[in-house]
Order: sequence, then structure tokens, then C-alpha cells
Amino acid sequence: MSKVMTSPILLTMGDPAGIGPECLVRAHASAALQNAVVIADAGVMRRAVAACGLATAVETLRSLDFGADLPDGALRVYEPDGLPDALDRLPWGQIDARCGLAATRCIEEAVRFVQLGLGTAVVTAPLHKGALAAAGVDFPGHTEMLQNLCAPRPGQLPPVRMMLANDQLKVVLVTIHQSLRSAVDAITTDVVLQTIVIAHHAALRWGQTQPRIAVAGLNPHAGEGGLFGDEEIRVIQPAVDAARQRGIQVFGPFAPDTVFMRARHAPSEGQTGEFDLVIAMTHDQGLIPVKYLGVERGVNVTLGLPMIRTSPDHGTAFDIAGSGKADPRSLIAAVEWARAAVQRKQAVF
Amino acid sequence: MSKVMTSPILLTMGDPAGIGPECLVRAHASAALQNAVVIADAGVMRRAVAACGLATAVETLRSLDFGADLPDGALRVYEPDGLPDALDRLPWGQIDARCGLAATRCIEEAVRFVQLGLGTAVVTAPLHKGALAAAGVDFPGHTEMLQNLCAPRPGQLPPVRMMLANDQLKVVLVTIHQSLRSAVDAITTDVVLQTIVIAHHAALRWGQTQPRIAVAGLNPHAGEGGLFGDEEIRVIQPAVDAARQRGIQVFGPFAPDTVFMRARHAPSEGQTGEFDLVIAMTHDQGLIPVKYLGVERGVNVTLGLPMIRTSPDHGTAFDIAGSGKADPRSLIAAVEWARAAVQRKQAVF
Repeated sequence: MSKVMTSPILLTMGDPAGIGPECLVRAHASAALQNAVVIADAGVMRRAVAACGLATAVETLRSLDFGADLPDGALRVYEPDGLPDALDRLPWGQIDARCGLAATRCIEEAVRFVQLGLGTAVVTAPLHKGALAAAGVDFPGHTEMLQNLCAPRPGQLPPVRMMLANDQLKVVLVTIHQSLRSAVDAITTDVVLQTIVIAHHAALRWGQTQPRIAVAGLNPHAGEGGLFGDEEIRVIQPAVDAARQRGIQVFGPFAPDTVFMRARHAPSEGQTGEFDLVIAMTHDQGLIPVKYLGVERGVNVTLGLPMIRTSPDHGTAFDIAGSGKADPRSLIAAVEWARAAVQRKQAVF
Repeated sequence: MSKVMTSPILLTMGDPAGIGPECLVRAHASAALQNAVVIADAGVMRRAVAACGLATAVETLRSLDFGADLPDGALRVYEPDGLPDALDRLPWGQIDARCGLAATRCIEEAVRFVQLGLGTAVVTAPLHKGALAAAGVDFPGHTEMLQNLCAPRPGQLPPVRMMLANDQLKVVLVTIHQSLRSAVDAITTDVVLQTIVIAHHAALRWGQTQPRIAVAGLNPHAGEGGLFGDEEIRVIQPAVDAARQRGIQVFGPFAPDTVFMRARHAPSEGQTGEFDLVIAMTHDQGLIPVKYLGVERGVNVTLGLPMIRTSPDHGTAFDIAGSGKADPRSLIAAVEWARAAVQRKQAVF
């Protein structure tokens, strides 16, 4: 018998019709979920065990007593109240309001447990935005949902930023899920400065004493002195200057096409990154280089929340859900990141 | 003694104050410039030889008789009319109108020789936009200058596109040197369709019988069904559909953050690219992934010109010009690309 001896990391199952449950099962089979509890529907997890061709025991915890005796090797599941019935009979790979509701309930419960001190970090399996919308959940994704769940008062949202990280590169995004056209307008000096400050504080908590932060420009060649757009001069440079005045080691704005190459850290190839992280102006400016060498090791980290939260770097992959082929490496990397953060006693991200 | 036996590849020196001349000298020292002639100022090339610590002989060709006897190992230089005096006494790494003028003259001469059938391809060392502007040359870069030099009638410019290619990835750009804000407006169905058609015809000329072309979206997640921008639905998809109706194997629009990863071709890592090339909507969307692993092997190819034209994937690097440290690998790759194209008897790119 094994016990959970300290407060566990909490993993949420994500959309039951996607690959989240299978990723969790495979991560557990790789022994990556020690001292972790999955907030999920037990039937959904049993279906995922079967889809993966495994015989893993799924044990349901009946209370917050995470110290309960359980068979060795069992996957520990805590079922929140309010889950729809018969989720494990819904078809794989289809948008369903019940899936969106169930995924949301698991996240709410995981956040509550961490807020109560009963969990140390939240690692989330992928949601489907369509299922959320079908369930009437008015958030485009995890980040916004977590921001709301962590608001000290209704509507008083903590400023957060999405970071994507792999072994070679860490990128923090100024704008995320909006059209490129609207993103250009959303990039203000205040928002860029806030991103630099959030990133700087996060890097200090990872243990870097003087993190070196690069800021990407928005335009080709970072505007080439105003020739191809003036956002670098008018918006981004003032934010960099203000951050430097606060003692932050921040550089740029740099030409977007080479700043990620310059920051890439691959010591085995003799490539030492010039910077510890890069501030990217838009979703794809930052995610294209992080994902270029494959999404298997990428981790999504929410910076600015009053808790540690990571997730894999991929979506629900409805096209392969239920096939047992889901690759758990990004989820495992997300758990490892969260675990390392917990071990550094970083209560706040 | 050695002779140039067939029409040579013509290389232009680029900005005399930048690293172009040194890259040319180092490429020549690597035996990469066989059957090639450098259109340049001879004094500038001699200064570059000295900067590189070499003893290469620089021989000036006095006419278009490229078959002239020359000492083995000599760097062959043809000097165009109208070069300013004493270019080799101008400081390294500084913008100068005389440098902009000289660089322009070399390009004009190289293009004229190819048009006369006296050269087979043009490979251009880097220009400095500031020096062009100082010289009153009204083009932001090579591409626009070449387009004008190749116009069948004044103002009747051939539609061209910039392709960036390395061993793993080929990217063709819909928009290049303009602000991101204006690029979003410049992406029309006609322009995207024209890019696909130009890229398709170029790939056929490389010998691919059924090139597989991927088209990137503009917005995060390719707009997520219109949620984050409608350019994919309104602008890009109709272009893809029209190209398919012409029998082109083209797919997308795909989420920008993963399409380059999917196209990456690295057989030694077990990674077979899904596509032969990717159409990128903006300069940095396309150049970030091409440059991410380093610019040493990247080649810039102009598609749509009535001649073969390539160039290295870097700029004048004024900060290291004159130090002898210039890395010639990208220039060598550009020469190799041009040579392979010539050997396939591809008279038109």
C-alpha cells in the first residue's frame, strides 16, 4: 500500500472526449504521477485505461484525505460534485456540452483545493473551446478561467501571462487569443511593461538572480528605425526603458526573425542562449519557434497567478482521441516543471 | 592557368563597408566560387583579402571575355563603370552614399550580363538599406531593385516573392518589408493565390512533380473558425480553393504555430516533412522558423524573376565588418543553390 504523504500535485482530466485522459493514464504508467491526484470522472479514466490497453487500477478518493491507503500503482482519482452522468459513454472526439461542463468542474475543484492548501500545483490536460462554449462557459481557455477563479474579488483579475517553455527556449506572450489585427492594437507600453515585470519576477522565483530578458519587436527588422512601422519606437522601447529603470536586465526591441535564434539554449550543440527568456508580442511570433522542433517537450506555464499552474503544449487532438496513441511527453514535462517549482517552495508563480 | 569555360555565375560585392566582400573572399578560399566572377571594386576586394589574413590574388577582368587566362586560384573581379573612387579607404561599418551607389552599380551590371546571356545567375552579397537611401536609390532592398531591373517595360514589374530555404524548410512570403499593421491589410486573395502559383511553378522547376504546399493562416489557431479573426475564411481559404482548382496540391490554411514544425524535413532525426514548402503570410512568421536553428545555411531565393537569383540569409553585419570574422556558409549555400539551378538548365526562376 502507498500513501500520498504530502499535499499532492493536482491534475485535471481536460475534455473527456479528447486525449487528456489517455495522456494522464500514460503519464501514470511512466511513473510520472507519484504524489499526484487526478481530478476527474473515474469512468472516463477507466475508459482511457482500456483505450491505452493497460490494466491500471483506478481508485476513487472519497474525501480530501489524500493520505488514504491505496493499492500500489493505482491511479488516484478525486471526483468533484456536479459531474454529468455517463460521461464515459459519450463518443470520443466530439464537442459535447457535458464534456465542457465536466472539464470546468474539475478545474474549479483543483483550484479550490490548492487555495485551501490541499494541493500544491495544478496541471491541466487540454480543454476544447467548442465544448466550453456549448456548456455556456464564457472563457476561451484555461488561462482566463484560472484568472477568474483566482480573482481576490469578482472582476478583480490578477494580470497573468502565458509562458511556453522547452529545453531550449522560454517565451512569454504579450497577447494571445485574439486576431492579429486586434493584437497589434492591444500592444501598449503598459501591457509590454507588465509582461516584462511578470516575467522577471517569475524568473527570479526559478532561482535566476539576474535574468536576461529579450524583447522582440513587432515589425520586420524591429521596424528598421521606423521605416516598417513605429510601434518599436512609440510603444515597445518606452516599456523596455521603464523596466530597465526598475533594475530589470532587459534588452531590445530586437528583430523578431533572429531574437529567438539568439536566445536558443542548446549547450550540446555549442549554442549558449544570449537570453534567459524572450518577450513575444503575439501568439504565433512566440509559439512558432517554441514548437518548431516538436511539441513533445513543450510546457505551458501561467505566470502571475497566485499558484503554480502548468499544462501540456498541445490541444485535445480529437482526431486521435480514444486510439490509445496519445503522446504523454508534454504532460509529463508539465508535471516535472510543476514538481520542480513546488520543490523550490515557490508558493506563488 | 585556368579559364572560365562556360558562362559564369555572377556575384555582387554588396555594401563595401559590410561583410559582403569578406564573405566572398572566404567563399573563394573554400573553392566555392569556381566558374564564378565577382562584380565588384577590385580595391575593396583586396582590402577584404587583407582583412581575412589571406594572400589571394585579385585579378581584374578587362572585358566581358570571361574566358581570359588567369592565374590559378585568383579571385576574378569585373569592375563596372561608374564606381566611386577610393572605396577601399572608406571606414568599415558605416553608412556612406558612395557605398550605396557602388553596390547598386554592381547589381545593375550583373543583371545586365545575365540578360545578355553572359552570366547564368546572380548571387548578391548584402546591401545596407541606409547606404542605398543615402545614395538616393529608392529601393528598400535587392528584391525590389531586381524586380525593376527585370521589368519588360518601365513600371511593368514581374510579380516576385522571397523564398527563404535551408536544409529543413522552404518558406515563401506573401508580404515582406512593411509594418505588420499594413501587412495585414495587404494580404488579399489575389496576392495569396499569386504567391501559391509562383511557389508551385518554382517547385516544378526544381524537379518536384507534385509539390505539396502548405498555407499558414494569419491569426492564432488559423482564426479558430472565425473566433480570432476572419482572414482565413474571407481571404486565405478562397485563394487555397482557387489554387486547388488549378490542380495545385495546396493545403490549409493551417495554424501558424505548428505548420512550420509539420513541414520541417530532418530525415536524420526521423522527421519527414509533411509539405515541400510553406506559404507564410508575413516576414517574421516565415523567417522565425527558417532562422531558428541558425542562419549559416539559409538561402534567400527570389521567385518569379526571369533569372536565377539567390543571396545569403544575413545582412551587412556592420559590427564585425573588417574583422575577418565573417562566416561565408550562407553565401556558399546561396552559390550552391544557384549552381544546382543552373545545372538543371532552369533558365527562368
